[in-house]
Amino acid sequence: MHVSTPNERQRKSTVELILDTKQRLFIQFPSGASVHLRSAAFIHRIKMQSNKSDLVAPVSKDLGRALCVITGASRGFGRCLAVQIAGLLKPKSALLLVARSGDKLRELQADLTDSDAGREGLVIRCVTADLGQKEAVEETVRAAKEMCPVGIDRLILINNAASLGDVSRFARSFTDPADIDSYLSFNVSSALSLTAGMMGAFPKRPGMRRCVVNISSVCAVRPYPSWVLYCTGKAARDMMFRVLAEEEPELRVLNYSPGPLDTEMFEEAQTKTGDLAMRTSFSAMHSQGKVLTCEESGTKLMKLLLEDVFASGAHIDFYDL
Amino acid sequence: MHVSTPNERQRKSTVELILDTKQRLFIQFPSGASVHLRSAAFIHRIKMQSNKSDLVAPVSKDLGRALCVITGASRGFGRCLAVQIAGLLKPKSALLLVARSGDKLRELQADLTDSDAGREGLVIRCVTADLGQKEAVEETVRAAKEMCPVGIDRLILINNAASLGDVSRFARSFTDPADIDSYLSFNVSSALSLTAGMMGAFPKRPGMRRCVVNISSVCAVRPYPSWVLYCTGKAARDMMFRVLAEEEPELRVLNYSPGPLDTEMFEEAQTKTGDLAMRTSFSAMHSQGKVLTCEESGTKLMKLLLEDVFASGAHIDFYDL
Repeated sequence: MHVSTPNERQRKSTVELILDTKQRLFIQFPSGASVHLRSAAFIHRIKMQSNKSDLVAPVSKDLGRALCVITGASRGFGRCLAVQIAGLLKPKSALLLVARSGDKLRELQADLTDSDAGREGLVIRCVTADLGQKEAVEETVRAAKEMCPVGIDRLILINNAASLGDVSRFARSFTDPADIDSYLSFNVSSALSLTAGMMGAFPKRPGMRRCVVNISSVCAVRPYPSWVLYCTGKAARDMMFRVLAEEEPELRVLNYSPGPLDTEMFEEAQTKTGDLAMRTSFSAMHSQGKVLTCEESGTKLMKLLLEDVFASGAHIDFYDL
Repeated sequence: MHVSTPNERQRKSTVELILDTKQRLFIQFPSGASVHLRSAAFIHRIKMQSNKSDLVAPVSKDLGRALCVITGASRGFGRCLAVQIAGLLKPKSALLLVARSGDKLRELQADLTDSDAGREGLVIRCVTADLGQKEAVEETVRAAKEMCPVGIDRLILINNAASLGDVSRFARSFTDPADIDSYLSFNVSSALSLTAGMMGAFPKRPGMRRCVVNISSVCAVRPYPSWVLYCTGKAARDMMFRVLAEEEPELRVLNYSPGPLDTEMFEEAQTKTGDLAMRTSFSAMHSQGKVLTCEESGTKLMKLLLEDVFASGAHIDFYDL
């Protein structure tokens, strides 16, 4: 959801915006007809606007004694989230870092062990694995169970691992289903199967809050030329986690869209995107300083997790907050 | 998009609904802040409401001399669409029917050959294939090229083939990525690769309109418990075709959500859905006569194709019309 100033020359109609007792949002036309609005992010905005003055719940300063699992943790946004979360966990928490690149994971582990969090007793483990494989999912879940300290009060799973796909290609070039299959396997199937595995290993119990974050994108809700794999994968993931939120009312599920981040993935997008207008706009964003640091965006995600008032299953964008 | 009467006890705000010169729709708050609405279906509704009296373009009575390809044509909605489309094609058109079940396809071919359309020279061919395989996609495209009459003025591809997935299972049970992979391969990858193959074989040329229909579902935009595969696959397909619409301005792309249809798939949903409330609501829909016939829904799709005024890439639901 993007806020902007509408063009000067415009047609206006006055309508009623209605929030009913079931928290459903409607637009009502002068004729009496009404249309139900379903966009979770939009409803989130409206709620935030209307409730700002009513927000009295105290915001927690930490994420409790937690077991936290982060995929794609070796670099970029995942690495940043690992560092930020480590600083918000209470002593005797556990952090499990998962990625395909072992060397970078171990570097991060060493950095975190030397940090304040590490010195205060945060247990850190790494799993080097390609989550597209059943064995890798099983290994990750097993490692999480083995390292999980007794008496944790929170479980946080951040499904961050993702690939951009070949953005030099347009949809019309994907004649071989195998190219699409392998992309969806790594970017969609692995996130669901790891989440399912973790939920089975750590079932709901009184006194433990369970939270699953999907690192989403504006591409989950808006189509972009020459990004067919990325958009399709992100849309699929959002829906998958929305279904999960419907099925598990006790679970806290968040689709967080972090905005354009200054990472290797952005560099790849800027140099390889097939659509010229898109590529030009990436370069302009970069030169105009509109690309976010991972820390900026990560801080907003941490705030969402600490406040813990988002509607479960919502798609919330950096720019919504 | 679903229209209903909001609950009696409610909160109201008066806002401005604004359509700017770029056809973007905004809600403007009394404070001056405005929010851009992106839902294509919603915008379609608004346009239909506001333009009803202005609609003067003559609606075509036929679909021209076309090559039409329908997947999943052996039964249910796909079979119905084949019959309906056959009746709207001009003489010397061609219809290619694709499905995994050869016997039923050939029955349909025989029925259509005996119909008025068949007697007037409609060429009908069948391909028995599982579109999850590259070879099957290639075979379908080759058959389309071989049978395509000279001088067609329209190409219509209806991506209807789909499976429900195992709706007895909740998301938390999908620990094996292979189960998800195979579902996405048949329901997502195959639709893109066939569409890509067809676009390569029949590139744009003056005098030929090309149209691609994705048979979508309300599940593409709304999550339902115990339908994680179906919802995820439909959301992925919608986004895939929205990207295609962005990339190919000349192509007409439609995500049509046909409503609940009286097919074997509905029977499967009604008996096998894991979520009890969902299963009960399917039974209630059935007993209250709220399940649509394929003919009713197909007629609306034919109307959309004949009118040909939908916004390319839009998700349009049976109940929107």
